Amino acid sequence: MRPFSFNQATAKYWPLVDVVKGCEAAGVRYVGLWREPVEEYGLARSAQLVRDAGLTVTSLCRGGFFGADDWFDDNRRALDECAELGAPALVLVCGGLFGRPLVEARARVAAGLEALAPHALDVGVTLAVEPMHPMFAADRSVVASLAGALELCAPFPAAAVGITLDTYHVWWDEQVLPLIEANGDRIASFQLADWVVPLPADVLVGRGLPGTGHVDFAPLVKAVLAAGYDRPIEVEVFNEELWQRRGEDVLRDTIAAYESVMGMASSTG
Amino acid sequence: MRPFSFNQATAKYWPLVDVVKGCEAAGVRYVGLWREPVEEYGLARSAQLVRDAGLTVTSLCRGGFFGADDWFDDNRRALDECAELGAPALVLVCGGLFGRPLVEARARVAAGLEALAPHALDVGVTLAVEPMHPMFAADRSVVASLAGALELCAPFPAAAVGITLDTYHVWWDEQVLPLIEANGDRIASFQLADWVVPLPADVLVGRGLPGTGHVDFAPLVKAVLAAGYDRPIEVEVFNEELWQRRGEDVLRDTIAAYESVMGMASSTG
Repeated sequence: MRPFSFNQATAKYWPLVDVVKGCEAAGVRYVGLWREPVEEYGLARSAQLVRDAGLTVTSLCRGGFFGADDWFDDNRRALDECAELGAPALVLVCGGLFGRPLVEARARVAAGLEALAPHALDVGVTLAVEPMHPMFAADRSVVASLAGALELCAPFPAAAVGITLDTYHVWWDEQVLPLIEANGDRIASFQLADWVVPLPADVLVGRGLPGTGHVDFAPLVKAVLAAGYDRPIEVEVFNEELWQRRGEDVLRDTIAAYESVMGMASSTG
Repeated sequence: MRPFSFNQATAKYWPLVDVVKGCEAAGVRYVGLWREPVEEYGLARSAQLVRDAGLTVTSLCRGGFFGADDWFDDNRRALDECAELGAPALVLVCGGLFGRPLVEARARVAAGLEALAPHALDVGVTLAVEPMHPMFAADRSVVASLAGALELCAPFPAAAVGITLDTYHVWWDEQVLPLIEANGDRIASFQLADWVVPLPADVLVGRGLPGTGHVDFAPLVKAVLAAGYDRPIEVEVFNEELWQRRGEDVLRDTIAAYESVMGMASSTG
């Protein structure tokens, strides 16, 4: 089975030092990290902490928000943080409209990638554009489909600009399977989360552990692996109820959900 | 300016007879109707009512829900209702997963269209597949993008199977403008509504009158008209606050919103 990586956002309030200890204890060798907890613990200390525990960082969240004033410096800094942590991919949440028409907001994303790509290549970290669910298009990411994200990647080598593919954001898309098949080299990070209905009042935090919702994981997982994706697979779930539980319990349930979904993906024809 | 059609769902609790009187008084010549209020007033009586007022029905909502047990009879009946009302298009909300994997649920929609297309041609009413916003993919429509909807239309003549294009559902889509340009003959109904953030607790009823949200209407309206769409344009807004207001006031504000947005669309280059 493809190795599992625990994205720390799944246990949002679990301190980094406990996430690392918990992963070590559970035999998990990969983690996805977020910038805020890393900054809080200290960048160099965090890098040392994960290294000492034998963990590998699979991604860092998040850069992007190209409509913000400080986007260039902030994203450049985020790339440097990835390099120090050994994370191969910086997850990009590209930002919403920022008061601009859609087409202009998208053009700013394209220009932002162009400005950052050389530094990404220099430090050996991929800018991993995350196509987000279209319900976030106004306020979080004008990149709202895999097709749109791939269009943004096209001018750059895959080492500079790729994709973060999260099942939660793309599961509904009629085109996602053929696009994965044709663009395996672009997938820099693959994340699993499930779509649960009814949506909660705050739609940002109503995702489910894999297997608890409506996503048909098997075809997506098989397509990504068949397209040549050879990195660990993250589970990243934003869920208010999950966040109220003990980190160890969340990690245990996340591993179980991962193994169950991956087992189904490998057993279906 | 292209004629305006008032979709009665915008004033959900306004009785049909008052909708018709209100439209007459306001000089509105087109209405989009829903099956429940038509049934309540009586089909033949409703047809007579709108005819006597000199109104033309631009669409009837809704058929679809192909996962339901009675889908065939219900959709056939809805086509007959359209014919009696003189509505050229039956809006199809195609239904969610109904417990099936996505690909199977979509195959049922395709099979449903195939079963219904002959009757649609017989009665001269277009089955107008509505691509819905992907946040409804699990529970309301597995047809979640214009590309996916067009794929479903492809086997049939445009007179039998076409598209209901609602700005609320497709505004975020990177591919929507070129797809409109290439498929003008498929657009059987064009509806305007705006995307407002934050989303309300019940995401179904948080749409906005055109101009109150984040949709960039001008490029969409221009693309649809340039592609040859020659019918009236409906405004259809599901909004809990709007529904609490007097029907006459809602109609007045809807006309004003329509004229403002259409004015902007015709004045921009």
